[in-house]
Amino acid sequence: MADADAAAESAPTADPPEQLSDVVADAPVRVRVRADTLRPLLGAVGALVEECRLTFGADGVRAAAMDPATVAAVEVELDAAATESYTADGTTVGVDVDRLDDVLAMADRDAVVTLALDPESFRLHVVAGELAYTLGLFDPESVRGPGDVEALGFEHTAALTLPGETVGRFVTAAGMVADHLTLAVDPDEGRFVASADGDTDDVRFVVPREDTAEFDAGEARSLFSLSYLECVERAVPSGTDVRVTLGEEAPLGVAYEVADGGGRVEAFVAPRLQAV
Amino acid sequence: MADADAAAESAPTADPPEQLSDVVADAPVRVRVRADTLRPLLGAVGALVEECRLTFGADGVRAAAMDPATVAAVEVELDAAATESYTADGTTVGVDVDRLDDVLAMADRDAVVTLALDPESFRLHVVAGELAYTLGLFDPESVRGPGDVEALGFEHTAALTLPGETVGRFVTAAGMVADHLTLAVDPDEGRFVASADGDTDDVRFVVPREDTAEFDAGEARSLFSLSYLECVERAVPSGTDVRVTLGEEAPLGVAYEVADGGGRVEAFVAPRLQAV
Amino acid sequence: MADADAAAESAPTADPPEQLSDVVADAPVRVRVRADTLRPLLGAVGALVEECRLTFGADGVRAAAMDPATVAAVEVELDAAATESYTADGTTVGVDVDRLDDVLAMADRDAVVTLALDPESFRLHVVAGELAYTLGLFDPESVRGPGDVEALGFEHTAALTLPGETVGRFVTAAGMVADHLTLAVDPDEGRFVASADGDTDDVRFVVPREDTAEFDAGEARSLFSLSYLECVERAVPSGTDVRVTLGEEAPLGVAYEVADGGGRVEAFVAPRLQAV
Repeated sequence: MADADAAAESAPTADPPEQLSDVVADAPVRVRVRADTLRPLLGAVGALVEECRLTFGADGVRAAAMDPATVAAVEVELDAAATESYTADGTTVGVDVDRLDDVLAMADRDAVVTLALDPESFRLHVVAGELAYTLGLFDPESVRGPGDVEALGFEHTAALTLPGETVGRFVTAAGMVADHLTLAVDPDEGRFVASADGDTDDVRFVVPREDTAEFDAGEARSLFSLSYLECVERAVPSGTDVRVTLGEEAPLGVAYEVADGGGRVEAFVAPRLQAV
Repeated sequence: MADADAAAESAPTADPPEQLSDVVADAPVRVRVRADTLRPLLGAVGALVEECRLTFGADGVRAAAMDPATVAAVEVELDAAATESYTADGTTVGVDVDRLDDVLAMADRDAVVTLALDPESFRLHVVAGELAYTLGLFDPESVRGPGDVEALGFEHTAALTLPGETVGRFVTAAGMVADHLTLAVDPDEGRFVASADGDTDDVRFVVPREDTAEFDAGEARSLFSLSYLECVERAVPSGTDVRVTLGEEAPLGVAYEVADGGGRVEAFVAPRLQAV
Repeated sequence: MADADAAAESAPTADPPEQLSDVVADAPVRVRVRADTLRPLLGAVGALVEECRLTFGADGVRAAAMDPATVAAVEVELDAAATESYTADGTTVGVDVDRLDDVLAMADRDAVVTLALDPESFRLHVVAGELAYTLGLFDPESVRGPGDVEALGFEHTAALTLPGETVGRFVTAAGMVADHLTLAVDPDEGRFVASADGDTDDVRFVVPREDTAEFDAGEARSLFSLSYLECVERAVPSGTDVRVTLGEEAPLGVAYEVADGGGRVEAFVAPRLQAV
C-alpha cells in the first residue's frame, strides 16, 4: 500500500519538463542570484526562526523575523542590483528558511541559481544546474511576523565597528563561565569591554579603540543572554566587519553587509534586566 | 579472575614469531595486494551485509552478497593480475567484511598487505608492515549466500555511464524530500531523470545525454527505495564513472571498475511496486 | 530574580582594569609563557585527573597526579628557563586542569600568556591578549595528591625510544580486539612486541631494534589495561619521541620532552595481574 501511494504521488514527475521552463518564464517573481550571495542572509534569519516572511519587492528581497521569546530580531535585505537578474511584483511568501538554505547548499558556491514563484501552486522553483527543487510555501499570514522591532527601544549611546571574529572570541570566552555577559563601553578609557562572571571564574575581554574601525563612544552598559548572542554571531560570515551599537540597558545592534554591500543584515538583542 | 582469564588467553602471543612466517610461506592462499586495491571492494560488499563468502579462486578473489531483505545484491571481483602476488586453491571462507576493512584501514593507502590463510586454525593472517592481524573466519555455509541474483530479473532497456558523484548528488537531493525516488530515461528528449516527491516539496534532477559518457537509451522508469541507493552510492570511490542500467519497473544495475580495471563491482537494487 | 542575581554578580566587572595590572605586577607568582609550551603538560595531567596540585617552584612549574583507581600516574615539569619570564615563591595551588587548558586553547598557539597569582582572592589571572580570564583555585590539600608513585615499583629491565605515533598505532590496533594488551621485549630477537588477543581475532605489532632510537633490552613482559595506555598515548604531542621502560610484570614508563626539552612528562601505568 505504501509503495502504491508513493508511486501515485510520483506521477507529477512524469510531466514534460517544458512545463518548468514555462513556469519560470511566466513567473511573477524571477530571480537569478549566486547561491553564496543569498545564503548568508538566510543563515542570519534561520539562526532565530524556522519560518519567515520573504518579500520580493521592486528593489530587492527583504525578510524580517523575531524569535518566539521576542528577545532577538533580525532584518535582512538583498538589493536587486546584487542579483544577476531580477523581476518581482511585491509578493510576500512564507518560507522554511533552513530548507531553502539546504537547497542552495547543494549548488556550488559560485553557481547562479534561479528562483521562480509559481503563483498557481504557491510553490517556489529553485533551479541550480541539473537540479530543480520545488519548495512548498506558506501563507505569509500563517507565519509569525517580525513584531514591532522599534518597540524594543534602540536608544544607543555608542557604536563601534570590529571584526566578526572578535565577537566570536568574546562570546566563546564568556560561555566558559556563564550564560550571560555584560557589554560595556568606557568612553574615558576609550575601550569596549565584554565581561562575564561565573561561580568561580571571571572573564573580561577588552577591545581598545585602536583595534576598532569605528569608535563612536558614549557611556554604555547592558547585560545580555549569551545564547542569543551566539545565534547572532554564528551567522556572521568569516572575514566580515560588524557594527555594534550599545546603550544603557538598551538593545544590542549588530549590523553587517554581505555580497560586497549588495545585502545587509541587522540583528537586535534585547537586554536582560540588571539589578542596580 | 578476569585478569587471569585474559592473561591465559594471551598465552598464544608468546609463540615465537617464526611460526607466522612459516604459516604464511605454507599457506594454501597467499595474496599480496595494495590496501587501497582491496578496500573499495570490501566497502561495496560491507554496504549491504556484515558477513559474506569470499572465494580465493584460481584467477582472483570473488565475493557476492544480498542484503537480508533481498532488495539489493552486490558482486565483486579482483583479478589475480591486479595483485602483487597471488596463490590460491579455490578456498571459500566466511568473513566479517567490515572488520577486514578496518584492519586494512590501519595500513597506509599504498602499503602492500599480505593475506595468508591458515587452514588449521581457519584464520586469515593480515600482515601490514609491523602489524600482524589474525582474523577469525566463519564456515562459509554458516554465512548467508548471495541468493539467486538472476531471479531479480534484469531486463534492462537503457544504459548510461556517468560520474559516481552525479549519482551522489541526486541521491542526496531526493533524500531531502522523500524516502524513495524514480529513475527514468526519456529516449526522445535524450535525458536521464531522477525525481522524488515529498509531502510539500519535489525534486527533479536531469542529466542530458551530453553529460554522459555512454547513453544507450530506451524507455525506462522504475521506483526505488532511497536507503538502498544510498548504500550502493556511498561505496563508489570518488572519481569513478559508474554504468547505470535501467528498465521498466526493473532492477537498477550500478557497475564500476576499481584498481584501474583490475577489480569490478556490480550492484543491483530491486524496484518498488508502482501503482499505475 | 535570576537576572537580578546575575547582574549583582556582574558588578565586579565594573572595577577599573588598572586593578588587574596592579595585581599582576605585585603577584608572588608571575609567569609569562607561550600557550603551546604549557598545554602539552596540562594535557598529560588532564588525561588522568580533573584536578591537580600545581607548584610554582624556584626553578619551574611542577605537577603530579595519580588517577583515582591508582593504576596510572603522571609527573610533569616545566623549567623556568623555558618561559619568557618567571617569578615564583614556591606556592602550591589546586587547579582544574582541563579548565586551564581550555583557557589557553583560546589563545593563539604562539601567543605569550601571563599567569599571575592573586593570593588575596586565591585566583589565577590568565591574560592572553585582549582576554583576561580569572580562574578560581582550590586549596591544594583538598585535591587528591599524586600518591606514592615509587610504591608502584619501577624495576624496569628494558628501555627503548620510539616515535609517539608508533605507540598510537599499536594501541589502536590492540583496541580492535581486546581491552588489554601485552608489551614485551625479546632481547634475543632484538625487538619490541605489542600483542592483544580477542575472542576470535589476535593482533601482534613488532618494532625491530632498527626502528628504535634507543634499544636497551632485557627480558620484559607485562599486561596492561588498554584504557590507561590510551589516556597516556593521546597526550603525547605529534612528532614526539617517547622513551618506554618495561619490566617483568612491572609498571610501564612513558617519558618524553616538550618545549624543546624545557618541559618533561613522565607517565606510569601499573600492570594487570597475569596468570602463569
